[in-house]
Amino acid sequence: MFIAVDAGGTSTRAVAISTAGDVFGYGRSGGGNPTSAGVPGAVAAIGSAVEAAVAGLPTGEVEAVVLAMAGERSDAFFAQLAERIGGLGLGPVVMQPDLLAMFHSGTHRLEGYGMVAGTGSIAARVRDGALHRVVGGKGWLLGDAGSGFWIGHRVARAVVSALDGQGPTTALTPLVLEAVGIADDPAGSAVRRLVSTLYARRPVQLAEFAPLAFAAAEDPVARAILSEAADALADLLTTVREPGLDGPVVLGGSVLVRGFLAGPAELRDRLQLPPEVVTASDGVVGAAVLALRDTGIVVDQDLFDRIRHQLADIVKDRAP
Amino acid sequence: MFIAVDAGGTSTRAVAISTAGDVFGYGRSGGGNPTSAGVPGAVAAIGSAVEAAVAGLPTGEVEAVVLAMAGERSDAFFAQLAERIGGLGLGPVVMQPDLLAMFHSGTHRLEGYGMVAGTGSIAARVRDGALHRVVGGKGWLLGDAGSGFWIGHRVARAVVSALDGQGPTTALTPLVLEAVGIADDPAGSAVRRLVSTLYARRPVQLAEFAPLAFAAAEDPVARAILSEAADALADLLTTVREPGLDGPVVLGGSVLVRGFLAGPAELRDRLQLPPEVVTASDGVVGAAVLALRDTGIVVDQDLFDRIRHQLADIVKDRAP
Repeated sequence: MFIAVDAGGTSTRAVAISTAGDVFGYGRSGGGNPTSAGVPGAVAAIGSAVEAAVAGLPTGEVEAVVLAMAGERSDAFFAQLAERIGGLGLGPVVMQPDLLAMFHSGTHRLEGYGMVAGTGSIAARVRDGALHRVVGGKGWLLGDAGSGFWIGHRVARAVVSALDGQGPTTALTPLVLEAVGIADDPAGSAVRRLVSTLYARRPVQLAEFAPLAFAAAEDPVARAILSEAADALADLLTTVREPGLDGPVVLGGSVLVRGFLAGPAELRDRLQLPPEVVTASDGVVGAAVLALRDTGIVVDQDLFDRIRHQLADIVKDRAP
Repeated sequence: MFIAVDAGGTSTRAVAISTAGDVFGYGRSGGGNPTSAGVPGAVAAIGSAVEAAVAGLPTGEVEAVVLAMAGERSDAFFAQLAERIGGLGLGPVVMQPDLLAMFHSGTHRLEGYGMVAGTGSIAARVRDGALHRVVGGKGWLLGDAGSGFWIGHRVARAVVSALDGQGPTTALTPLVLEAVGIADDPAGSAVRRLVSTLYARRPVQLAEFAPLAFAAAEDPVARAILSEAADALADLLTTVREPGLDGPVVLGGSVLVRGFLAGPAELRDRLQLPPEVVTASDGVVGAAVLALRDTGIVVDQDLFDRIRHQLADIVKDRAP
């Protein structure tokens, strides 16, 4: 038996899974990424999800805890995590890149491409079941073209410029003012209040405006922002594409899945996606695939579907 | 007699000037803007520049202290400043917008336009000797198109993208790596080190890379950034232009003066400047013009030139 964990910025999910692909336990907790939750917070979240997943199970049969997680990991994180997991009678902890788990949440195949556009944006080529080339993921200030921050930042700038009388009037203005609780007023104080409100927040919170661009996708200003974002994401995917290396493109992140894939056909077309596109499911599915494969088990389509369906049923049963 | 003060982010200058336009004293100190220097630091800098300007003069003859300064001013700033200036036997303090002082550092005329592109960017229409419309100045995150931050930010993103293998190779890469003390290396660690170095600094420090774009103006990536910046500044000036309102355009800030005006003709042309362009001189000249005009004195070309030349001589004599 194995424990597979996907530790994300907002939630952490863990499953106990047998080498035959049977799911015996599931646990869920808060954000488990040490960059956003801090080391103690991340360790606590991962520990509590794992503890719930193994509740009532014979922990002696667990061969390893496979953890998929993004970003940098400090020695302090590893030490505290090993202690917490060891305290449950489990171990060792085996790390896997969350981008690879994301890819394998959409496919069991060993070659293809993964692209995520949420708050940030990143793409990878997968070859022989491993990340072969990763591009993007350089954060809101230095990269992440086409991401939620990138779109939301342009939305905010366009609204400030429109209120300032420089840029064109846009349907985004009332949406942004409403989102931050400011009423548009003819005296011109809205722009001052908007500017001081937005500077008082963390820059990355501008990503919250990205859904407004999709909501106003027929507005010329919003459409231009989204078209440029789609071009940037198409360029990101092109950068990792390798001639002759086919396989599915697994897409993840709210900007791609809830934004572009659900949006106007013209915008979707600009992404220049190949025919075989899969939407990422719960990253813990990919972590489970990686856990089984680590032991030499070949995860084929049948086994992959079994894992995915069991987890989908568990998540559905737990929905309020 | 009057004291005219220009309090900027890096230095504060004060002059004692008679209603006939004779300069009797001059003082200089550090940054006097409360936003960057803090209220006590700004009050100390302004106080020390004013104290030096009135040294040996009969303070009873000073009718007012005219202070040109950018940005928001708190009540605490006013209270502490009035106390410090009052302690010198001077007062009252009369505030003037630094953008108007910038305009009048280049011309005595009552109509025209001013545009500054330094770390930020802002433009104004001047009518009847007052700011009639101001556009821009919304800061690095929400505005400042074409500014030093805007250019430096794009320089940093282009270099990160080039090192990441996504964007085109650019002559900016070695310039940026050298500026932050990182050696380019074939193992690919330069991009990681550059990204972590830049995230550890304040975002606005990216403005330091703007001169690198002008230094590499023949490089296609740098040229594209500068062309877009010039277009943004041309658009800013267009926004404040009013048909029928002529007069000079006074340009200030390192990006305009040391960058575009000194750069390739093709870039300068993109600014679409009208025929009559003046470069801003020391903002304290404009503060002096405003101080004299407050008393009803008409500042004509002769008087303007006298003030400007006296101050230029003083600054030259003090140069190391």
